[in-house]
Amino acid sequence: MPLLSYAEAAERVQRFILALVEDRSVQDQAQGQDGLGAAAVALATAAGRVLAEGIRADRDQPPFDRSTRDGFACRAAEANTHQLLPLTGQVRAGETPAGVAGSGKLAAGEVWEIMTGAPVPEGADAVFMVEHAEHSFAVEGSSSAERSSSSVRLAAPRTVTPGENIVARGSEARAGDLLVSPGVRIGAAQIALAAQCGYARLQVARRPRVAILATGDELVPVEVVPGASQIRNSNGPMLAALVNAAGGEAMVLPAVPDRNDPLDAAIQQALTADLLLVSGGISMGRFDLVENALTRAGAQFFFGGVAIQPGKPVAFGQLPRPGQRQLPFFALPGNPISSAATFHLFAAPLLAALGGDSSPLPRFALAELAGEWQGKPGLTRFLPARCDFGLAPQVRLSPWQGSGDIAAFARSNCFLVVPAEAEQIAAGSIVQVMLA
Amino acid sequence: MPLLSYAEAAERVQRFILALVEDRSVQDQAQGQDGLGAAAVALATAAGRVLAEGIRADRDQPPFDRSTRDGFACRAAEANTHQLLPLTGQVRAGETPAGVAGSGKLAAGEVWEIMTGAPVPEGADAVFMVEHAEHSFAVEGSSSAERSSSSVRLAAPRTVTPGENIVARGSEARAGDLLVSPGVRIGAAQIALAAQCGYARLQVARRPRVAILATGDELVPVEVVPGASQIRNSNGPMLAALVNAAGGEAMVLPAVPDRNDPLDAAIQQALTADLLLVSGGISMGRFDLVENALTRAGAQFFFGGVAIQPGKPVAFGQLPRPGQRQLPFFALPGNPISSAATFHLFAAPLLAALGGDSSPLPRFALAELAGEWQGKPGLTRFLPARCDFGLAPQVRLSPWQGSGDIAAFARSNCFLVVPAEAEQIAAGSIVQVMLA
Repeated sequence: MPLLSYAEAAERVQRFILALVEDRSVQDQAQGQDGLGAAAVALATAAGRVLAEGIRADRDQPPFDRSTRDGFACRAAEANTHQLLPLTGQVRAGETPAGVAGSGKLAAGEVWEIMTGAPVPEGADAVFMVEHAEHSFAVEGSSSAERSSSSVRLAAPRTVTPGENIVARGSEARAGDLLVSPGVRIGAAQIALAAQCGYARLQVARRPRVAILATGDELVPVEVVPGASQIRNSNGPMLAALVNAAGGEAMVLPAVPDRNDPLDAAIQQALTADLLLVSGGISMGRFDLVENALTRAGAQFFFGGVAIQPGKPVAFGQLPRPGQRQLPFFALPGNPISSAATFHLFAAPLLAALGGDSSPLPRFALAELAGEWQGKPGLTRFLPARCDFGLAPQVRLSPWQGSGDIAAFARSNCFLVVPAEAEQIAAGSIVQVMLA
Repeated sequence: MPLLSYAEAAERVQRFILALVEDRSVQDQAQGQDGLGAAAVALATAAGRVLAEGIRADRDQPPFDRSTRDGFACRAAEANTHQLLPLTGQVRAGETPAGVAGSGKLAAGEVWEIMTGAPVPEGADAVFMVEHAEHSFAVEGSSSAERSSSSVRLAAPRTVTPGENIVARGSEARAGDLLVSPGVRIGAAQIALAAQCGYARLQVARRPRVAILATGDELVPVEVVPGASQIRNSNGPMLAALVNAAGGEAMVLPAVPDRNDPLDAAIQQALTADLLLVSGGISMGRFDLVENALTRAGAQFFFGGVAIQPGKPVAFGQLPRPGQRQLPFFALPGNPISSAATFHLFAAPLLAALGGDSSPLPRFALAELAGEWQGKPGLTRFLPARCDFGLAPQVRLSPWQGSGDIAAFARSNCFLVVPAEAEQIAAGSIVQVMLA
């Protein structure tokens, strides 16, 4: 298969995702229910999951005209006269406005003391801040009874405008409004919103199950002391961590040697998953059997080879299975940094979509390049790098011995993006980094 | 207390962290053990935790001269003659080089077929790629026995240089090298490294316990239908999610009304934690009792008020407790966006340090501003915003009704940083975002 550009390969993954989402919504309509497979979880355990229901306001937000300051509820026109106004009520957060007369209403020419978060009494149209008030006490004293007979004025030359320091009832949301849609990954802000709206439990999407299959005659499990020509299987645990962090549920299969029968058997075993990740065995050699095994299993390939570094041999396709939609798979290169980079670039977006997450992946941001980069054009590069993420974010390439250099990778925290046409990037340039 | 600039406030938190780290290392030396409190966890569950031990190479990496390509192990000088060279051996990943003669050594004038990841035989100093080879078969056929009698040459005008397509033994790491230091938060790359080096379990730091205390007469729990002047406690669940995401263990105390006795009791209850977060009750009003309650508990304040928006009233200090180092606390403003922003700015770095995490927080990156910003100078602003995190990352302010507008916050995914001196930021400018 010919090499695709990074943009073309990303586009093919996106097309697959769009078809998936469309298919799912057709299915939802037919079944009259959520096709994701959802479960209710307690709010305290919902962070990191994907919303399978929308969050709606159960009442207006704020539910009353809310004071944003400690100060005095007033009529702005009266306050702006800078006359002393009698203090005839007080309202704290959590209280229903009553006032001395018990009417719940601010009478003309009066002011009430009000606290941040408290409901503004009827009749008031502004709050002036306690810092801008001048007091006059009929009787000097500190008890509430004594102070209730005092007067207050807005200190000149300050003025207030109608609405000042008040958030009007319903200005954030109206009862019944959809505030967050299904498909959003739940973070602290969504937890706060759900709490505000009375969701003690949330419907979340089922985590997609991802079969992980590392291949290679040289691999031994982490507990085993490797022979002279062997290495430990690091891709299995690494991909499991990537899958879990991306919201999936990793099913790590035992590493498979470079032989047809065990490879075929492992692929059959993976058919129960929602996504299959194979690592290794996809370059040019005689013992690179993965592509053949996938072909024997009936694979349709969407691409096999992308003009990127690292990760050029990455392949994407799907496998038929009886009575079920086809199983999407990625065959990731065996070198660990290649495997991780291609996971982020191609597998993570599809995994997110399978889990009902509508936020686009991978995530990129900008930073200033420390040191310059020079190289041959032709490949879009995603090079292990370290960004300091300070207020003046600076990213520096991690020195590495190639895509097998796990130690260099473990000292990195992002990938520097080098566009395919670049031959040189000057120190101090603003560059793209892929957030890992 | 006078308002500090953002930089001064961040500096005071950093100074506290430095003292903490220094104190801890003195303690470690005295006790001859790790002061963090560490526990061993299985590699598969270590992601997100903080390393309490260094990861060391258990052998050279790579452990042998490793071929990075499928191709032919050769002597570069001989290959560069473009003569046909007899193919006298084959080595796959996981195999010990043997060769037809069984010597394990590449004899002069010969080449061996070699696979990606396989050990390069003694005598070879380069690998030329299978894509660059021309074959001559003594007997045409496909079986291994027949092909072992064939010859191969490097196709002219290609040449190889000594070392090409080989990663030399030990070039990534030497046996015993410290590859990752304690204090690193474990991600997929560190999992891969630990697996490579044979760590089936990892020593990780204990999660700091963070007491969370929301205050306010107006608060009811999420399960309760609030009265007309009440609202549900959203800061408690939100701060718990923030704490857990930052690697802490949230201890959510019941919300406390604005009265001295319950507040004093709750603060006493929190003294067993590693960090205390109080939200609400710290602005100017008569019923803002948190500062007084902390003062009664013997608080030393490092700051109380920072020139930021939102979150200006945030306070930082510590509380004495018998027989133990003082308990650091943050009094966060009650408005949810203020609470979240000040958590990220000040509490998260200290929480990370308490958990042994040496990576600096908060994390900032750059993006292009969509739309312009105008406002008054004087406060460093951290405004809820939405970044698309695409290849051309663009950030846009979330329209909001102030720092109580949780719905706007839930539609955001970062904070736009506006420097204190800015009065205007043009559309298309490269701006800082705080990653949440």
